[in-house]
Amino acid sequence: MRFKGKYDNIVEKNNSILCVGLDSDYERLPECLKNEKNPMIKFNEEIINATKDLVCSYKPNAAFYESAGRIGFEAWQKLNDQIDEKIPVIADVKRGDIGNTARHYAKAIFENNKFDASTNNPYMGWDAIKPFVEYESKYLFVLAITSNNSASDFEYHDNLYLKVAEKVHEWNKKSKNMIGLVTGATKPEELKDIREICSEEILLIPGIGTQGGEVEKTLKYGFGGTNGNMIINVARSIIFASSGKDFAKKAREKAKFYKNLFNKNL
Amino acid sequence: MRFKGKYDNIVEKNNSILCVGLDSDYERLPECLKNEKNPMIKFNEEIINATKDLVCSYKPNAAFYESAGRIGFEAWQKLNDQIDEKIPVIADVKRGDIGNTARHYAKAIFENNKFDASTNNPYMGWDAIKPFVEYESKYLFVLAITSNNSASDFEYHDNLYLKVAEKVHEWNKKSKNMIGLVTGATKPEELKDIREICSEEILLIPGIGTQGGEVEKTLKYGFGGTNGNMIINVARSIIFASSGKDFAKKAREKAKFYKNLFNKNL
Repeated sequence: MRFKGKYDNIVEKNNSILCVGLDSDYERLPECLKNEKNPMIKFNEEIINATKDLVCSYKPNAAFYESAGRIGFEAWQKLNDQIDEKIPVIADVKRGDIGNTARHYAKAIFENNKFDASTNNPYMGWDAIKPFVEYESKYLFVLAITSNNSASDFEYHDNLYLKVAEKVHEWNKKSKNMIGLVTGATKPEELKDIREICSEEILLIPGIGTQGGEVEKTLKYGFGGTNGNMIINVARSIIFASSGKDFAKKAREKAKFYKNLFNKNL
Repeated sequence: MRFKGKYDNIVEKNNSILCVGLDSDYERLPECLKNEKNPMIKFNEEIINATKDLVCSYKPNAAFYESAGRIGFEAWQKLNDQIDEKIPVIADVKRGDIGNTARHYAKAIFENNKFDASTNNPYMGWDAIKPFVEYESKYLFVLAITSNNSASDFEYHDNLYLKVAEKVHEWNKKSKNMIGLVTGATKPEELKDIREICSEEILLIPGIGTQGGEVEKTLKYGFGGTNGNMIINVARSIIFASSGKDFAKKAREKAKFYKNLFNKNL
């Protein structure tokens, strides 16, 4: 099944556009897991079990796994096995390289680890995207406008983010609906501009929660027909809701809160 | 010692601006290594031993290690131990993420693996660079103009690559000489423009060899005073010069060829 179908099914089944960010920072894991053989694997397992009926996807960010050495490597390898195949997993890797090198990144993400989607950096253009698009059942989220302050350094340079949106729209047509965008929730006006260009692409939207993005405007401007074609990511506010033994229970409560908050504003 | 000092010393000692790209693609390793416990580690060891008096640095690209699963992970972890501490190792990772996430990438590269430098993607701006600059003895090479065709998609958008050069120059001053650029050898005219803005930054220049960049123009336009402040990367043409048992010997011959070619044109 292609990604879009998988996404549509899970949004309907779980009635949710919430994505839980599995940014399982080793240093922030609950004390009670520190004696586990691999605390990251156990943490992810508990968070996934506590939230799997509330989400439309999971998004682990590779940085937290790479910084944890062998434990992180093993936890990264394990992720796809831990998550029901009906729920898409987005590898947040923001890779961007060319030709043969890009092919190896795509192989690592889509073949070795069998993730359903990746995040990609647009800087080097189509050459960095093409090898990923050769995997027909996968999906790419290309960075357009990001939630950080210094997005202004380059993303606004002669409206680069709109140029990215235009190119992604063109590539998405060419690839038969395999490419969407990352658009930060702290920039609702820019999100509106992007949605005018990319009317049906899936938008991956971080920045709600810890980063303080506005929910109401984000959902209004990000809405792209039928089920919305949005994936709203919340990470720390959910997975680190408690550092005690009740971490999974508290994560579930927070996930429910965000799921309902998004549905109310849809 | 800061990176610039280490770079100056090795350029003088080995009389070389050649960087060997350790893009040790598992599928292309010589047949004779396939029975080794870890063929990538053995391959790197042989290539390094055969070339270490001919280079100013090594540059492994993470994609080839990530696509090789556990073998690649172990080879990546091992790299820094295999290379004389006088020779800088540039982790070609092209990472680009923000805040806490960027800190974790920097930790993985500079603390866990103790690499001397990294390549970084500028798209998200200073927020993606800052956590790397906190490691005073390290160096960053930020993508400016890349050697591929579709660099035209965004890098030329209202001369974005020159905007990147301007920002890098500003950041480099602020960080006391810790940030240079990646500039593809297939674009000598753009390299000239960049050198006018970044007169003393170290340029990491891929694209000679397999990618067909022009040596003479590259060295002329890239020259940045004293020892040149350039690192010219050659990967496949050297490390895969032969697929037979003589692979290390042939790699040495090719490395000598490029070293001398660059010195002749300096």
